[in-house]
Amino acid sequence: MKHLIAIDWGTSSLRGALLAGDGTVLEEVSAPAGILVVPAGGFAGVFAQHFGRWQQATGALALIAGMAGSKQGWQEAPYCACPAGFADIASRLHWIEPARIALVPGLSCEDHGVPDVMRGEETQVFGALALLGLADARMVLPGTHSKWVQVAQGRIVGFRTFMTGELYALLRQHSILARTLPQEDGQLDADAFRRGLAHARASASLLHAAFSVRTLALFDRLPASAMPSYLSGLVIGDELRAQALDDSRGPVVVVGAPALAARYRLALEALGIAAATVGAQASWSGLFAIARHLEQSP
Amino acid sequence: MKHLIAIDWGTSSLRGALLAGDGTVLEEVSAPAGILVVPAGGFAGVFAQHFGRWQQATGALALIAGMAGSKQGWQEAPYCACPAGFADIASRLHWIEPARIALVPGLSCEDHGVPDVMRGEETQVFGALALLGLADARMVLPGTHSKWVQVAQGRIVGFRTFMTGELYALLRQHSILARTLPQEDGQLDADAFRRGLAHARASASLLHAAFSVRTLALFDRLPASAMPSYLSGLVIGDELRAQALDDSRGPVVVVGAPALAARYRLALEALGIAAATVGAQASWSGLFAIARHLEQSP
Repeated sequence: MKHLIAIDWGTSSLRGALLAGDGTVLEEVSAPAGILVVPAGGFAGVFAQHFGRWQQATGALALIAGMAGSKQGWQEAPYCACPAGFADIASRLHWIEPARIALVPGLSCEDHGVPDVMRGEETQVFGALALLGLADARMVLPGTHSKWVQVAQGRIVGFRTFMTGELYALLRQHSILARTLPQEDGQLDADAFRRGLAHARASASLLHAAFSVRTLALFDRLPASAMPSYLSGLVIGDELRAQALDDSRGPVVVVGAPALAARYRLALEALGIAAATVGAQASWSGLFAIARHLEQSP
Repeated sequence: MKHLIAIDWGTSSLRGALLAGDGTVLEEVSAPAGILVVPAGGFAGVFAQHFGRWQQATGALALIAGMAGSKQGWQEAPYCACPAGFADIASRLHWIEPARIALVPGLSCEDHGVPDVMRGEETQVFGALALLGLADARMVLPGTHSKWVQVAQGRIVGFRTFMTGELYALLRQHSILARTLPQEDGQLDADAFRRGLAHARASASLLHAAFSVRTLALFDRLPASAMPSYLSGLVIGDELRAQALDDSRGPVVVVGAPALAARYRLALEALGIAAATVGAQASWSGLFAIARHLEQSP
């Protein structure tokens, strides 16, 4: 296989990697050039600025996953409906320039008559499955909007979004709790984090659990420096409570950046559930698999 | 009994009423002079500005409930621990000027080793009990921080705070959902509100349910004008889901301003639970009962 330019173009950031024919990462770039800061009509220019050099040097195909394929992105790559397997997304690329630049479609699913969507995570899921050699899995992709994904026989059968990272930031910065929290998050205080997890599990709603940040401060039961870790435990704990995880169903695959993945690993451990972790290379692995699929398709 | 100056001095607003000896409201005032905007040392001045006239004319006692008795308030009236009855708060007033101005203490309780607190709502609860002639009740006092209160044999045995109103405002103004919502809330769309209630009930966490505001907009399943009502249904629905209300236990007493109380009544109806509503007069009734208790005590 030839080189591949693998790109994850999200809401707030742009990451790319030049991959060799065997999938080895030769070079990586990242920039705060998420789709929200790209002016209308500016996507081709931002692409050229960051990846033109690689494309000129290697003539490689560029595959782009993430919000760049949304209505607010470069062009819209319509969602594939779940259940959706690897071949579904690989065969429904949205070509910006034939054989040169393509957008990977996101996925949609339906739960109780309400739709859910992802863009970019589908590529990470298939990449993680390839890296781990799995066909069945339950996965979490933590972040601003965490995704819990159910995979059966190589197909994504359903998923649920949790606004966990965003709610953490809102409570941290804009709520009455902000008065109780120090300016900086500081290092993770694992005990405070676990205490937050436990309180979220005992509460039935974050609306209630979150108020404990205020009352524990009021009664001097937790130092201010431990509060960000405690609040992090509350929001992640609420997400896990809602998943009602069954510990007999094997490990949960956590796909994400190391610091956040470590928190989810701690949270799962507290429930007696093992975790397997896959990092950012899941995106590159997923895009590489799509490129190989294209080469092998007639 | 003589006249009484009844005051509810909260975080963002100040309300007062001049009551006759039989409890009749003779005059009411309100001002955006909540404790957050009173400068340090400025409470006596703000009090005199709004209530000095009444006190000079009648020589009446002034009883103040609410956040004015907090650490950030005029002076601190320490919390009474639950279970707490009417006599507990009536006999533990914090006197700013003997026989002239007193603060009503708030309540604290403990749940799974985590404290909870209220200031002002305890007075409304005892006022509502007096108005309705009840000794046992489950009550909700909706607002920025909703309180669910359990009353048995005239005593508040426990309560839980939900940051419902605050989370609504945060999601409305500062989250990614703000892009989907119109500037003004507009009138309540009862169908959209009920749809939000139902989705919150089917979801186990607001972290997940809230994302539906985005996806319903994305797929044009709900018009933008209906979104504020839908989001309101989601947050109130999450609060009710967490309460796991049993419909065999009689009506829920809703204490609050008419527009918000009407939403809770709708939400309770959707669960097949009857609601009894008490308005802002609950504060005046509670403070009046305390004043009468003082006159009758030796």
